[in-house]
Amino acid sequence: MTDMIFASQNGRNIPKEDPIFSISNRAKDMLQKEGKEKVINATIGALLDDDGNLIVLSSVDEVFKNLNPSEYAQYAPIGGTPEFKKAVQKDIFRNYVPSVFTEAVATPGGTGAIRNAVSNYSEYGDKILTTDWHWTPYNNIAEEQGRSIEAFELFDKEGNFNLESFSAKTKKLLSKQQRLVIILNTPSHNPTGYALTDDEWKKVIEILNDASTDKKITLLVDAAYADFAGDEEESRSFLPLLENCGDNVMPIIAHSLSKAYTLYGLRCGAMICMAKSREAAEEFKRVCEFSSRGSWSNCARAPQVILTKIYDDPKLLQKVTEERKEFHDMLIRRGIAFKEEAKKAGLKTLPYRSGFFMTIPCDNPKEVCMRLEKEGIFLIPMAKGIRISGASISEAACRRLPAAIKKAMEQK
Amino acid sequence: MTDMIFASQNGRNIPKEDPIFSISNRAKDMLQKEGKEKVINATIGALLDDDGNLIVLSSVDEVFKNLNPSEYAQYAPIGGTPEFKKAVQKDIFRNYVPSVFTEAVATPGGTGAIRNAVSNYSEYGDKILTTDWHWTPYNNIAEEQGRSIEAFELFDKEGNFNLESFSAKTKKLLSKQQRLVIILNTPSHNPTGYALTDDEWKKVIEILNDASTDKKITLLVDAAYADFAGDEEESRSFLPLLENCGDNVMPIIAHSLSKAYTLYGLRCGAMICMAKSREAAEEFKRVCEFSSRGSWSNCARAPQVILTKIYDDPKLLQKVTEERKEFHDMLIRRGIAFKEEAKKAGLKTLPYRSGFFMTIPCDNPKEVCMRLEKEGIFLIPMAKGIRISGASISEAACRRLPAAIKKAMEQK
Repeated sequence: MTDMIFASQNGRNIPKEDPIFSISNRAKDMLQKEGKEKVINATIGALLDDDGNLIVLSSVDEVFKNLNPSEYAQYAPIGGTPEFKKAVQKDIFRNYVPSVFTEAVATPGGTGAIRNAVSNYSEYGDKILTTDWHWTPYNNIAEEQGRSIEAFELFDKEGNFNLESFSAKTKKLLSKQQRLVIILNTPSHNPTGYALTDDEWKKVIEILNDASTDKKITLLVDAAYADFAGDEEESRSFLPLLENCGDNVMPIIAHSLSKAYTLYGLRCGAMICMAKSREAAEEFKRVCEFSSRGSWSNCARAPQVILTKIYDDPKLLQKVTEERKEFHDMLIRRGIAFKEEAKKAGLKTLPYRSGFFMTIPCDNPKEVCMRLEKEGIFLIPMAKGIRISGASISEAACRRLPAAIKKAMEQK
Repeated sequence: MTDMIFASQNGRNIPKEDPIFSISNRAKDMLQKEGKEKVINATIGALLDDDGNLIVLSSVDEVFKNLNPSEYAQYAPIGGTPEFKKAVQKDIFRNYVPSVFTEAVATPGGTGAIRNAVSNYSEYGDKILTTDWHWTPYNNIAEEQGRSIEAFELFDKEGNFNLESFSAKTKKLLSKQQRLVIILNTPSHNPTGYALTDDEWKKVIEILNDASTDKKITLLVDAAYADFAGDEEESRSFLPLLENCGDNVMPIIAHSLSKAYTLYGLRCGAMICMAKSREAAEEFKRVCEFSSRGSWSNCARAPQVILTKIYDDPKLLQKVTEERKEFHDMLIRRGIAFKEEAKKAGLKTLPYRSGFFMTIPCDNPKEVCMRLEKEGIFLIPMAKGIRISGASISEAACRRLPAAIKKAMEQK
């Protein structure tokens, strides 16, 4: 079915209008008309201060301000500068030194990393497996390349990672296709704020090793929010576990400078493989750089230089880390405030551990969100619930929200 | 046939090594060992001064230096900021005011524009038509999406645009597929420096109108070098002619800030449609933004803000234009020097009118290039000739090259 005039549908489900964009516009309109104090805009996926202004790390801004022309105007190599490739591996792995074979390829944000993983480790027509609660652009990324998303249930009845559903869907898809790309967004899962525990990770890897006997599984860990999940070393404790993946399971980490360095608008991230052989790692670099060449060519140089400078200067790195911790703690306080008030109000939430977003399960999310908009509260309706960006609203607003949501849900 | 270890070939022809990258590395090595005066590196696709340093417009650098954090750190909307969308249309159309329906979508350089055009206006398995002499990444872009390139002969025997070959290939492909994307890189064609005359354009449009009776043709004009093709208004004289395209032919302009604003490393361009109906233009915006969302998400904000500031300030615009003209004239002088010396040396060149590159037809380009490397001259071998970047070498080097190439070609 297509309703196209000149373009080709190519099997994609292209919405008439971006729903988040429309909601965001209505929030802006109301803010202009009624004033800031009347509006809570919890739709934005960027860290804002309590007054609704974008937070930019001043330590990072200082580096930006001192870039010389050749550091931003010159093309970077397709896969990133050699210095960036080193720095970004330090940034993702920190104190852990992998004994597997790693290669890094620069990408425009986490999106580019996911795009390239799908392109190179799945086939046309394949299904990509991810959680039922997921960042909706995964669908765009899959459909844009003639793939589609299949979901397993993220939570079991106790609110833990649903290993049974994960295992069943993995086996089902591998019975139908030669290879499988699985996307797990953890820690600080968007939209629920969930993070897999190390025990859950161990079982996930067991399942993958068992399922991949004669077929290939690529495990894409979308770690875009890894630096907003508590202690930055602890939140990375799952990385060494990935070395237990068998020969037919390849982990790829999708990393982003958007949130951790507040460089959203400079479009920089990376994909890093953890391969069992040097050959597979070199192939990763080769095929992903081919994909980059054919999609966006090279990536912006400025953010690559910025990250390199930060990792070249221990004092600067410390400054960035400390500044980020301040905002990380602010985010955690907002989350705690929301959880406390949700408990008081008797509002059921999905298991939130950390990150930018929290989620309320809900049968009629669109209606509830429309009701809340009348009260000046702007949230994102999803298929089975409502997403709240704690990153974009004050602690006080986080305290106000649960009772208001509960009321709107009970309204008939 | 596939030699893959873990990745999926997906029908792509992925080279073991990027040949341009290897040549460029050899040039750098020799430069370090033997010194600048011993090396001519004519492989680089960016405008360098006579000493081999990247030229960055100082007027543009001033705008960059004064960006505030929200102007670079914040996400831009998927399709670009509203102000950028206006500015970039002024930038491509200048004094011409289209009476067709236009929409602009921001892209990471010209590459992103071509990628999105292929994605939305051709189908999986389709052939994309372009000239036999072409920028090789067109192949990556096509193959990365399960398409492939078919070529017509750019030149007829007199060195004019080969209308016959163009017409025959267009008809042939349309007899086999429902729609056709055609890429024409003009003016300042990469690699030959050719530009279609307005008369040739009129005939091209006639051919397309005739061929598209019941099928759809998308005419992608890759205009990345439009500002290095003589007078900036004159070089755009073909744009109004595109209004004569019939209902089944849609022109899309791929535009880039890389060369004209020396912002290569900030990755910004745009695709602009010239549609016959408002509906087709709105669909263009919708489908291309879907593609962006699923490939790289949004584009870098900084270059969008920079272009907006330039078009908001007539004095600044004048300063940028005058500064660019200086370097444009330098480039023209290099081209003239090369042509004069080629004539003297009896070296046959392909018809060069303007731009970054010139080309020598040659039966054994790889061997000739290897011979020249021994003399410290680094050029790019292509399928049927040798590409010389006049953008990256001095006028003096342009004078030296033709005799040296001629000698290397005659060597046995």
